Amino acid sequence: MSKAVVVVGGGVIGLSIAWRAAAAGFRVRVVDPAPGSGSSWVAGGMLAPVTEAWPGEEDVLALGAASLRRWPEFAARLQAEAGRDPGLHTAGTLAVGVDAADRDELARLAEYLTSLGREVHQLTGRELRGLEPSLGPAVRGGLNVPGDLSVDNRLFLAALRAACAANGVEFIAVAAAETLPGKVLLDNGSILDSEVTVLAAGAWSARLHPGLAGLIRPVKGEILRLRHRRGALPPPTRTVRGSVRGKPIYLVPRPDNGLVLGATQYEAGFDTDVVAGGVRDLLLHAEELMPSIAEYALVETAAGLRPGSMDNLPLLGWLEPGLLVAAGHHRNGVLLAPVTAEVVLDLLADKEITPEAKAADPGRSR
Amino acid sequence: MSKAVVVVGGGVIGLSIAWRAAAAGFRVRVVDPAPGSGSSWVAGGMLAPVTEAWPGEEDVLALGAASLRRWPEFAARLQAEAGRDPGLHTAGTLAVGVDAADRDELARLAEYLTSLGREVHQLTGRELRGLEPSLGPAVRGGLNVPGDLSVDNRLFLAALRAACAANGVEFIAVAAAETLPGKVLLDNGSILDSEVTVLAAGAWSARLHPGLAGLIRPVKGEILRLRHRRGALPPPTRTVRGSVRGKPIYLVPRPDNGLVLGATQYEAGFDTDVVAGGVRDLLLHAEELMPSIAEYALVETAAGLRPGSMDNLPLLGWLEPGLLVAAGHHRNGVLLAPVTAEVVLDLLADKEITPEAKAADPGRSR
Repeated sequence: MSKAVVVVGGGVIGLSIAWRAAAAGFRVRVVDPAPGSGSSWVAGGMLAPVTEAWPGEEDVLALGAASLRRWPEFAARLQAEAGRDPGLHTAGTLAVGVDAADRDELARLAEYLTSLGREVHQLTGRELRGLEPSLGPAVRGGLNVPGDLSVDNRLFLAALRAACAANGVEFIAVAAAETLPGKVLLDNGSILDSEVTVLAAGAWSARLHPGLAGLIRPVKGEILRLRHRRGALPPPTRTVRGSVRGKPIYLVPRPDNGLVLGATQYEAGFDTDVVAGGVRDLLLHAEELMPSIAEYALVETAAGLRPGSMDNLPLLGWLEPGLLVAAGHHRNGVLLAPVTAEVVLDLLADKEITPEAKAADPGRSR
Repeated sequence: MSKAVVVVGGGVIGLSIAWRAAAAGFRVRVVDPAPGSGSSWVAGGMLAPVTEAWPGEEDVLALGAASLRRWPEFAARLQAEAGRDPGLHTAGTLAVGVDAADRDELARLAEYLTSLGREVHQLTGRELRGLEPSLGPAVRGGLNVPGDLSVDNRLFLAALRAACAANGVEFIAVAAAETLPGKVLLDNGSILDSEVTVLAAGAWSARLHPGLAGLIRPVKGEILRLRHRRGALPPPTRTVRGSVRGKPIYLVPRPDNGLVLGATQYEAGFDTDVVAGGVRDLLLHAEELMPSIAEYALVETAAGLRPGSMDNLPLLGWLEPGLLVAAGHHRNGVLLAPVTAEVVLDLLADKEITPEAKAADPGRSR
């Protein structure tokens, strides 16, 4: 009889782990009242460790870059097992700025990345508009980072669910109440026995185990989904990350002329309201980078809760015997799904994990 | 056997006619693929003939005022027959302005309305904020029009559907293809025989009868639905109609701290996309009148197609023997529902119609 694994949480992290564990021969159950919803559903889907890089967070960049290297093979395997496109988009990323301070910030980022040996090209506004004609005159300079990619998070989720189904993963559509070694207590009062539990419940993880109290917090983000309309300039081919007078904004292209806008961050607890002032800012900042957005259809507004950690690295490892944690991925859940699944599988098999993931050990906070 | 009436269109106009006709003893069928959707579902629900008044459109004001007088009794009867609240809100309306030109415009409107004997009070910004503390410092003056009311369009639709059901109205969930005297051709190829057909298909009416070609056109409008969040100032008690540097905006309160924002107008055919630039303008203009909106939850964005006519009066009367039209109500469908239903019932009974409705005869365009 194969070992029984219960994965608590059916977002991109939980589903990636469930799929890979089931494919490796474990008997896998996923506990989630609504798999594939939450922040995984709302995500922008950037695979962008380089343009997200921040001096002092070298561990975050190293782990993100390690996962990005795994993405093409992970996507190919997912496509084969799911029988559907997981939505990987390989056109690259531009990081652009508007005022002098934005451009100074980007120049500093370029210098930092170059010092780490990353591929970055500084471009003028004219050069940027040559690459992406929809960028407006306010864009004065930026970086071309061809290695930072994106994925359509909803195609990715659908592919993960199909791959889980193809590998016999069982879904239990109930909320978890507590995760303990050897068992998971459910909200409906029933108990699931497990040999290994993987806690992958995103922003809710800290509520499910006392050892995570205070280590993972919800960070609300709002996104707008737009669709090109006839007569307007088409969306960019690449992801565009902008800094508009210090305010971050990203524009991520989707298939069929779709475009996702995001960037708001609120530290306000478990609140998923889309707030009018946030939508106003996203629209104004996005229009400043790409004026034709005014003519796009607004097809959806949504908010999700990123699972923030104290140092922007996830918590990835044994929390106690029989209980693994894979949570706290903050802005990078989609990016980090391949390396997270690999690390969890290696831990389940008592193998050495990839060196870039060692800094994410949950014991670092003790 | 009672006379058979087929009503083409299940918006507020079609449903009001169907309910009153069924209550009067007619055998009534309503043809609509999705009753209660369309512009009736999207509407702001203002009952505001006075603050909508425009010099030169005295017929529109007279018809609107005639319908507004009928609203309280119509609502009471609807409540009794539907067994549910039709959502009439009687707190009145403020018309406010921001810059000097906005205020001049309001002063001219006040003078015009006073000359017609309508109740209007001019107020300073301070007096307006005394009535509605959520109005911001940019509001410099305006009018108090206690007689202009509002209705929750979705409660109204639900009550109309319940009253129709209680009176035995039959719903046929298919689109009409053509309306002819004595019969209605449906999109699915079937034919409905009728003794009298009432064409009440809003912006689509001109497509259903050659005699209306060019007389009714779609005028797109977008609305945002917001909800108060703890910590923000509560929504106004009254409807607030604003002019922000010449741009119209309205804020209509709803039960449970809801608020509807609207006012965009596009003459662009049968297009129901919500456009990013329209949402941006609605939010910016509404915030200028009521800054606390920035902290409200944005719960819905939607667009509907008002049925515009050449003179802003509806087309209301016999189009040919056996075929009545009740369409082209433009911004005033909810307001004009009671008088429209009454006029149609009087025409079905060969009675004299109310004098204010005579200007709406569809023959006026010939």
